[in-house]
Amino acid sequence: MDLHRLTRELHVKNDTKIVMYVADGLGGLPQHPGGLTELETARTPNLDALAQRGICGSSVPVTLGISPGSGPGHLALFGYDPLQYLIGRGALEATGIGFELEEGDVAVRANFCTQGADGNISDRRAGRIPTEESAPLAIKLREVSIPGIQVFVEPVKEHRFVVIFRGHALHGRVHDTDPQVTGVPPLDPVAVDSDSNKTAEVARQFIHQARKLLADQPKANGLTLRGFSGKPELPSYEEVYGLRAAAIAVYPMYKGLARLVGMDIVGQPHTLDEQITLLEQNWARYDFFFIHFKYSDSTGEDGNFAAKVKRIEEFDAAVPRINALNPDVLIVTGDHSTPSMLKSHSWHPVPTILAAKYCRTDACQKFGESECLRGGLGQFEAKHLMTLALANAGRLGKYGA
Amino acid sequence: MDLHRLTRELHVKNDTKIVMYVADGLGGLPQHPGGLTELETARTPNLDALAQRGICGSSVPVTLGISPGSGPGHLALFGYDPLQYLIGRGALEATGIGFELEEGDVAVRANFCTQGADGNISDRRAGRIPTEESAPLAIKLREVSIPGIQVFVEPVKEHRFVVIFRGHALHGRVHDTDPQVTGVPPLDPVAVDSDSNKTAEVARQFIHQARKLLADQPKANGLTLRGFSGKPELPSYEEVYGLRAAAIAVYPMYKGLARLVGMDIVGQPHTLDEQITLLEQNWARYDFFFIHFKYSDSTGEDGNFAAKVKRIEEFDAAVPRINALNPDVLIVTGDHSTPSMLKSHSWHPVPTILAAKYCRTDACQKFGESECLRGGLGQFEAKHLMTLALANAGRLGKYGA
Repeated sequence: MDLHRLTRELHVKNDTKIVMYVADGLGGLPQHPGGLTELETARTPNLDALAQRGICGSSVPVTLGISPGSGPGHLALFGYDPLQYLIGRGALEATGIGFELEEGDVAVRANFCTQGADGNISDRRAGRIPTEESAPLAIKLREVSIPGIQVFVEPVKEHRFVVIFRGHALHGRVHDTDPQVTGVPPLDPVAVDSDSNKTAEVARQFIHQARKLLADQPKANGLTLRGFSGKPELPSYEEVYGLRAAAIAVYPMYKGLARLVGMDIVGQPHTLDEQITLLEQNWARYDFFFIHFKYSDSTGEDGNFAAKVKRIEEFDAAVPRINALNPDVLIVTGDHSTPSMLKSHSWHPVPTILAAKYCRTDACQKFGESECLRGGLGQFEAKHLMTLALANAGRLGKYGA
Repeated sequence: MDLHRLTRELHVKNDTKIVMYVADGLGGLPQHPGGLTELETARTPNLDALAQRGICGSSVPVTLGISPGSGPGHLALFGYDPLQYLIGRGALEATGIGFELEEGDVAVRANFCTQGADGNISDRRAGRIPTEESAPLAIKLREVSIPGIQVFVEPVKEHRFVVIFRGHALHGRVHDTDPQVTGVPPLDPVAVDSDSNKTAEVARQFIHQARKLLADQPKANGLTLRGFSGKPELPSYEEVYGLRAAAIAVYPMYKGLARLVGMDIVGQPHTLDEQITLLEQNWARYDFFFIHFKYSDSTGEDGNFAAKVKRIEEFDAAVPRINALNPDVLIVTGDHSTPSMLKSHSWHPVPTILAAKYCRTDACQKFGESECLRGGLGQFEAKHLMTLALANAGRLGKYGA
């Protein structure tokens, strides 16, 4: 079902304000059967009060059983079907480091690898070369020169970097060169269709010159390319919802994802406090605000239950300042669960609150996984949240006569 | 949404074990308003304990309000969208009697009927001729000989039998010959498309010769053909999930359905005890086990509430032996409901448990229809169970970066 077909046609404008307050990886698991999750353990008086006056539920980011990456997780929250809109690995990686892709660019995720005298790969990650050593090498690759093509090389972390080709008639349908095994040479970049022949040729030249520049390296003397992809074509928030939207995020990945759907990136905050200050300062200028809090995810990824609890309490503590602005719709949710027991993104539904004047509240008294099971939103796909937000903001007309 | 697009791409292999323990027609209805269902009446201490440590929910086999046959009911449990994958009536009937269809076969469900001297049908079911009389007649039809075609005729029950044509260039798109009313002759087998012309001609010859062989029969002197269909093309468990799967079933229909998705049929058990023994004996050889228990359905079909209760208690009693094997994921569910009050398959959601280490348990204390309404899985489509099983077994990678 294409939700945007509905929202495009039905949205109306008014002066309401919608805030989507996202705790990354919010959902969790108890440490032992019958115990409490991180969120249930945390002291969250402000979120509990919000759960009491809002409507709660369990958000399924993609579909039952699927653990999403940050890309699909956020696209779903933004109302873009994560199964319909795919962001290629190269494009996501570029987005993640804050590189602003332009229409027609081709982004590629690259790995340094170790190749023997015979050309065969002996280590697909160049011995997990530390960032201090790999970043200068990536920057050195900016010396590659291909006529008619602008080449950007950006360090990422350890063996990883990103290459962006900008030029005329480039397309992203090129096969990976990573053979996924050692003992064989990297594959040739082969175009999937004739439109991408030029990109494949550009990639070949890049590899050729790069290998020369890396020739004297002990570990990182080779490279593989994966996830060739163009800028994802996502309709904008203005187009599908009629919303002037702002993203207030600390990390480049989330700024990048928000930018892909046409949000303005507001400020350069480093703390949640600074984020809320930016929210206050920009309150009049936008209809919709996406506020991203990273640390409920990173502590979960670290497997640190207690730290995740603390971070959720920090997330809770900022709620009164948001409430003070009197948003017409306030949504609190996560892009996926990151149980510290699993140290990774997971498939578990995410506790969610939508608070608004006419939300038809339910019996939930606290904000937590178990309590949200009793919520009025039930178990729902995350992609529906934006439609619910618009409805609760009085921004959707009637469907059909 | 094609779930297999996701599972094909994301599945990984490990040494976990998944058991799907299916009580056919499990869901039911109370005998009077406010009463208990069959499952709620049954004493099921083992399933109750499982419900406490697992996550519960209500499984919708096809979609709300739809009562599925055994084919769609099981395909959904196996994770195959029952609205996308259709098993023709002929193919299902052949599968149901344990006939192993080959690629290119065309299976047809046939009925004996009574035709007058004018050729018009006077009884579409040949007076519901008893199986003792009809089976020898079906076997007699094996005398039919069509050049280049292997013809199989298999008795089923009463007026019903199955015909399978095997030969070159046969296709299953042929119209039924049953006119659905009496007082008219059977219809001619007409091909829907030119690819199926040969099949229609083969069917014509079969009917012609069969009528001669049946000419002196008082009741079963004619026949109609329905549901021409080839072997359903279902991708295998290995292909879509990376699972080596075994089916441990008593009845041919369920073995047949399991074989269609590439499961191995293990042993020839006659009792649930023998089924569990086979489970124990084959534990090391497979990743996934489908155990089918028939009698919760057949007692429901008989309208025998008390007998269904007893059978569910028998189903419960086998749980400790399954638990003793320590499966990583244990799913208990049914392919549909068969309330004894209705004496038939019904549309009601089916109580379901998924027990696994990281399943995020809920407040359910007993296994039953009402209790499952409070479950953490909510009301979900049965086709999602396999994705959930894989996720809980740690057999699914992350979707998107």
